[in-house]
Amino acid sequence: MAKDLTSRKENYAQWYNDLVIKADLAENSAVRGCMVIKPTGYAIWEKMQSVLDGMFKATGHVNAYFPIFIPKSFFSREADHVEGFAKECAVVTHYRLKNSPDGKGVVVDDDAKLEEELIIRPTSETIIWDTYKTWIQSYRDLPLLINQWANVVRWEMRTRLFLRTAEFLWQEGHTAHATKEEAIEETEKILDVYAEFAEEWMAMPVLKGLKSPNERFAGAVETYCIEALMQDGKALQSGTSHFLGQNFAKAFDVKYLTKENKQEYVWATSWGVSTRLMGALIMAHSDDNGLIIPPKLAPTQVVIVPIYKKPEQLAAISEKALEIKKSLESKGISVKFDDRDIHKPGWKFAEYEFKGVPVRIAIGPRDLENGTVEVARRDTQEKEILQFQDIDTKIEHLLEAIQDNLYQKALSFRENNTRKADTWEEFVNILDDQGGFILAHWDGTAETEQKIKEETKATIRLIPIDGKMEDGKCIYSGKPSKQRVVFARAY
Amino acid sequence: MAKDLTSRKENYAQWYNDLVIKADLAENSAVRGCMVIKPTGYAIWEKMQSVLDGMFKATGHVNAYFPIFIPKSFFSREADHVEGFAKECAVVTHYRLKNSPDGKGVVVDDDAKLEEELIIRPTSETIIWDTYKTWIQSYRDLPLLINQWANVVRWEMRTRLFLRTAEFLWQEGHTAHATKEEAIEETEKILDVYAEFAEEWMAMPVLKGLKSPNERFAGAVETYCIEALMQDGKALQSGTSHFLGQNFAKAFDVKYLTKENKQEYVWATSWGVSTRLMGALIMAHSDDNGLIIPPKLAPTQVVIVPIYKKPEQLAAISEKALEIKKSLESKGISVKFDDRDIHKPGWKFAEYEFKGVPVRIAIGPRDLENGTVEVARRDTQEKEILQFQDIDTKIEHLLEAIQDNLYQKALSFRENNTRKADTWEEFVNILDDQGGFILAHWDGTAETEQKIKEETKATIRLIPIDGKMEDGKCIYSGKPSKQRVVFARAY
Repeated sequence: MAKDLTSRKENYAQWYNDLVIKADLAENSAVRGCMVIKPTGYAIWEKMQSVLDGMFKATGHVNAYFPIFIPKSFFSREADHVEGFAKECAVVTHYRLKNSPDGKGVVVDDDAKLEEELIIRPTSETIIWDTYKTWIQSYRDLPLLINQWANVVRWEMRTRLFLRTAEFLWQEGHTAHATKEEAIEETEKILDVYAEFAEEWMAMPVLKGLKSPNERFAGAVETYCIEALMQDGKALQSGTSHFLGQNFAKAFDVKYLTKENKQEYVWATSWGVSTRLMGALIMAHSDDNGLIIPPKLAPTQVVIVPIYKKPEQLAAISEKALEIKKSLESKGISVKFDDRDIHKPGWKFAEYEFKGVPVRIAIGPRDLENGTVEVARRDTQEKEILQFQDIDTKIEHLLEAIQDNLYQKALSFRENNTRKADTWEEFVNILDDQGGFILAHWDGTAETEQKIKEETKATIRLIPIDGKMEDGKCIYSGKPSKQRVVFARAY
Repeated sequence: MAKDLTSRKENYAQWYNDLVIKADLAENSAVRGCMVIKPTGYAIWEKMQSVLDGMFKATGHVNAYFPIFIPKSFFSREADHVEGFAKECAVVTHYRLKNSPDGKGVVVDDDAKLEEELIIRPTSETIIWDTYKTWIQSYRDLPLLINQWANVVRWEMRTRLFLRTAEFLWQEGHTAHATKEEAIEETEKILDVYAEFAEEWMAMPVLKGLKSPNERFAGAVETYCIEALMQDGKALQSGTSHFLGQNFAKAFDVKYLTKENKQEYVWATSWGVSTRLMGALIMAHSDDNGLIIPPKLAPTQVVIVPIYKKPEQLAAISEKALEIKKSLESKGISVKFDDRDIHKPGWKFAEYEFKGVPVRIAIGPRDLENGTVEVARRDTQEKEILQFQDIDTKIEHLLEAIQDNLYQKALSFRENNTRKADTWEEFVNILDDQGGFILAHWDGTAETEQKIKEETKATIRLIPIDGKMEDGKCIYSGKPSKQRVVFARAY
């Protein structure tokens, strides 16, 4: 086991925390609940951002930036919204410090009290819809398809690196439309973008569906989500896309002039993914030997380690290594050649395995003679000897194979951990013995959902869209149901 | 004059504000002093970010992310630093709201008062050096070359879009080094990066130099800066790079083990540029007809406008226009083909001129017959007729010529507005009649600098690095001086 990493079997939560810290991805800061994202972790987040940003732009969205502060009164305008967020807000009350009268340090200057307190955005619907009021006059101004990359703050009591932190980084899309249909179409389009990103880039299969009313975003008419299954059998909500109806348009009085010259309220969506995806990525693939990062998101995709005893051997190996590096880079593959002499090859092998670099190439003097390299893949830990010839194409295909294997492995895991439960006993037994997704009938009431949550900690992760209709009885109340929903314990 | 834009001559400040708002770059928000950066403005900022980020990475830096909150006590650790920033801090005192007892809205929950107040970062030296304490143990951990892209808050009383706002976006580099020499080298290297970015990308010539002690960053040993001259003869500080000595290492007790096995304090630098650069970019080049954006930073570099009366004409023109668009795009040029039928060509011409698109191509039926297009450049407003053949290369060269012309024009302006003053009378007359940079002798004291500022509002913008040594007398005190420094009124 690498670097005293707790094994998943021993303590999954500890394994995760160890891994995040020992792989230098993030750490807790001096400020309660806030993390420092270290360069190794941030490099992965940057790749995620870059891909998502491209996908948003390809679907017609543009970026903008709105203030971090929200006047307190804005929150109260949308009743559900304030209910959902008021309990976890960081509140700015003053705008100045002064020297402490006792000469020790600084204190808040009571003369610099704000007339109205400012909330640090936990999400930006209110400040953005207050702004949209002046941007939207007529149907010609619609649709408005805007995204922002920003930090947000939610004062969580129990925090975990990446998964739940007081401050986190995210993107939040806020769009405005002339019709209900168009807004719903947008909500679903973004859900597809999120699912595609999770599956194609993170190699993480997701279920798509609708949240039950209990789990809906505060202020939304419908919340769509993608849910992934982690290796401990718990679900992780990985992205949400909200159809907001006319709720925020009414709260902020945003109307537009239709082609027929009538004033109508605007229809809205909002949607977001956050640094929480980093947690999902880590938990979806990594093992007891350390991180496993899908090649498409790995900042370093290939590392080349020279094996040598004498300096002249290193010189000859370096020449070949740099040639390989160059040919891989010409294919858009990111390569690190680690010729540091302060560490031995064995140390480097362990290090890059732990850090999750998808492919390791080792070259020694005998390889040079034979015209070969040793190639090791991180996912299966298999090694093979490859000829120099066409090494760039071979590595390119290997990276694709690793990406595909990680997805297939995660998909099999999910399939093997998705079960039907038809009785309460079955439901509870599966939850306690196996975890995973459980497909079960539910009577559709918030009361039943709440009871199930209280008794088992399981929640409805989603109601499948276009799911199979099937008559059944609620596992809890025995009342009739038309469709199975997906339950799980969740992060 | 476009869109009721106030002319520069009439009221330069109003011209600037009109332009920022009417060109849809940014606007004031509902929160005092905070701006909304609109999609058009944000697209330029994104280009700036992308170029700068590449330059930082090319010089060995990596990105990370540190918390937005700084515990109040951290500020007091470095005496100059707290003095410089305590007066303009947003302070978080509570972490929860609750329903108002009168049932109207929400109020701050007094039960949720923080034990220690949190400051929203005005800059991150303190939280970062508190973190570096655990990251740095030995010389092997150095240098640490980290940058972060973030929002910061300084509670400015008088704000102006982009130039001075309570919240702004920036990058802040924070590096740690084993030796003083290496830290100074880093400080100067970054100054060169900033100058290169300003000159090569923004087409904005800058002076490089050192700040006087009065104008130094709070906590720095030396502050290096780049200063540009705006069209109204006022200077604009466009970037700063600070040599922090061991001040923050001592304040946060960050030591490292040297190769000789001794404990030494670490040497530090910090450096930043912000959305203020947007203000500089706008003011450096734009005119009474609207924005002028240097081609290298223009989100849309070329716009193609079809001129037609009948739909079949549009079809033929579109075919040609899309062909040109494709060939330009293959050269990496960003092109918009505006075939909207809701606006007439004249409207579009005015619009793109106002928005500062560097090159406009117009194509009408006669052009198709002749195998030509009409090309207009935004900077000089000259038009020419060009043959289809090799249009991509011609436009590529034209964009380069525009970039170069903007730089040369700004450089000539600065040269024509940089004057020597040898007496107080000369100094005051130049300031009042002409503005610009003034090269004058100064006795080197903070008192004289302060007096000059109080009497004229001019400050020392910088002390030239490697400037010519020359004996002279201080224009204010008459005391001896060894070198001229650069004075100006400034933003």
